[in-house]
Amino acid sequence: MEPTSQKQIQLAERPKGMPDSSTFKFIETDVPKPDQGQVIVRTLYLSVDPYMRGRMQDTKSYVEPFPLNEVIQGGVVGEVVQSNSDSFERGDVVVGMLGWQEYSAASEKDIRKIDPTIAPVTTALGILGMPGLTAYFGLLHIGQPKEGETVVVSGAAGAVGSIVGQIAKIKGARVVGIAGSDEKISYLKNELGFDETINYKTENVAEALEKACPNGVDVYFDNVGGEISDAVYSILNKFARVPICGAISSYNKEDEDLGPRVQTKLIKSSALMKGFVVSDYASHFGEGAKQLGQWVQEGKLKYEETIVEGFDSIPDAFLGLFKGENKGKQLVKVASPLYAQL
Amino acid sequence: MEPTSQKQIQLAERPKGMPDSSTFKFIETDVPKPDQGQVIVRTLYLSVDPYMRGRMQDTKSYVEPFPLNEVIQGGVVGEVVQSNSDSFERGDVVVGMLGWQEYSAASEKDIRKIDPTIAPVTTALGILGMPGLTAYFGLLHIGQPKEGETVVVSGAAGAVGSIVGQIAKIKGARVVGIAGSDEKISYLKNELGFDETINYKTENVAEALEKACPNGVDVYFDNVGGEISDAVYSILNKFARVPICGAISSYNKEDEDLGPRVQTKLIKSSALMKGFVVSDYASHFGEGAKQLGQWVQEGKLKYEETIVEGFDSIPDAFLGLFKGENKGKQLVKVASPLYAQL
Repeated sequence: MEPTSQKQIQLAERPKGMPDSSTFKFIETDVPKPDQGQVIVRTLYLSVDPYMRGRMQDTKSYVEPFPLNEVIQGGVVGEVVQSNSDSFERGDVVVGMLGWQEYSAASEKDIRKIDPTIAPVTTALGILGMPGLTAYFGLLHIGQPKEGETVVVSGAAGAVGSIVGQIAKIKGARVVGIAGSDEKISYLKNELGFDETINYKTENVAEALEKACPNGVDVYFDNVGGEISDAVYSILNKFARVPICGAISSYNKEDEDLGPRVQTKLIKSSALMKGFVVSDYASHFGEGAKQLGQWVQEGKLKYEETIVEGFDSIPDAFLGLFKGENKGKQLVKVASPLYAQL
Repeated sequence: MEPTSQKQIQLAERPKGMPDSSTFKFIETDVPKPDQGQVIVRTLYLSVDPYMRGRMQDTKSYVEPFPLNEVIQGGVVGEVVQSNSDSFERGDVVVGMLGWQEYSAASEKDIRKIDPTIAPVTTALGILGMPGLTAYFGLLHIGQPKEGETVVVSGAAGAVGSIVGQIAKIKGARVVGIAGSDEKISYLKNELGFDETINYKTENVAEALEKACPNGVDVYFDNVGGEISDAVYSILNKFARVPICGAISSYNKEDEDLGPRVQTKLIKSSALMKGFVVSDYASHFGEGAKQLGQWVQEGKLKYEETIVEGFDSIPDAFLGLFKGENKGKQLVKVASPLYAQL
């Protein structure tokens, strides 16, 4: 028998600056019952992602803000424990945008079945999921690295950045990664095969970039914004491409995010900057997922996951993203499966 | 007989901030003699352009800095007064990147013959020359306006901006022009048919933009940078395109040009910004010039020229660009033709 009540985390307040304990509200609520066509998904792994900070704001963006006093939405891998759908049965492992709760009611269109025999199910939230597809489309559709070009990636040890750098290597580019700890730097160099690395916490980024990029920068995959990116924009080559994926340095700023304006730099280099979100490429997800899966199976793409345990650690895992605590994809393991074979 | 000596303006000092009389040096020098294959061009009209400010700096850019103590280079329409070339004869009217001087020696590859019976020869420095091609390629290759979309152009009454707005109208877009005087605003509305206008010197640009662009901004052709552009970046629509043509507001700034960073705005809108210079499209110039000429002949493209007279007024005409004194293309008439029939 499944329990009838469960834990859930709601957005209690819209944070100013860094979120804290007053941002989140833990409540005890009923486990939902499935409507016709729905299933009940028991959360096994839950994804925390930097973009979620944006949804905590009440400003116009590419996705709706999280409503106050409702469950926070996010990526979940879970098992079906109850099914009113012909397409799913108990024990199926699924992924979808569900919520920070132990059990979710999900319609068929909200979830997708994943095959635990192909890759660990957690990859559906990482390298074979949203972060992997983000890296794939941002780099290949906007960045378009060519053999021998120099690709710089910031947030290079994160869920997206670590995949960007490896795909750039597959495409024959010279890859320079910027990250914020010696452990991450060693991971990029020794495990992922980055050509050059910069520890932005201990090095002068502008000087280190000059040294690491003697031929300038052809592609800059920007995950972080702020002063790190200011420095990269100054050494863009003619016709450089800059996919703008994230600006984590600014997400918790209370003041306006001021820096050198980029216009003259773009004119001097005839460079292109383009913002994007992964859903812009939804019609190509099949192609991207297939290619990523193939590279993983061929051993060309490695990935790392940072997994903390327990539902109660969700807020800390989320806040850790802004302190750079994660290497690769940050996940929370909420429960072990009851029915699924993992 | 041609005179043997002539006036020339050299770059005397690299200006900090706004150029002034110490920036320029008037000298008296010999009229050059043509080498084999060269001609001597007598300057009739001379172009002053905002981008030339960039070449007075000693920083890496898309074109080399002007050397100190050498003639300042710029667009010239002149007549051939002496020819050692089989391709040109006395009385031919030509256009080329020559210099701020009364006579230039030019090789065949440096100049192009223009036909004074098709359009006034000054158009070779304006609507049928570099500014026209800049507007054409920036708007159509980067901006790609579609019927019914909203196109905002800053520096809208300038040589480039006034053409951008008209081409956008030809393509069926709704056009909003930003300029800095009542006279310019009236020109945009009453003569060029812009749909909406904003006088940035008398109006609150952010508020006026909200009103003028109830459906947001699909294309922003940026000639000016600075706070005007900051305001436009805040109301970009999903998949907006921003050709970055110029940043005249910053060219004479001594301090770093600081403003709100654009990354989060680009992510929210999945917008594209691209810097460019007209020479990026050199291989397409023929197509562009042909289309512009056709539109002019059909009366679909109007143009204005602000012409001051006399070689000695070149520096003031140049500095006037930064005070917004010109409507349309700013030219200096240096001499009347001796041989050419205009």
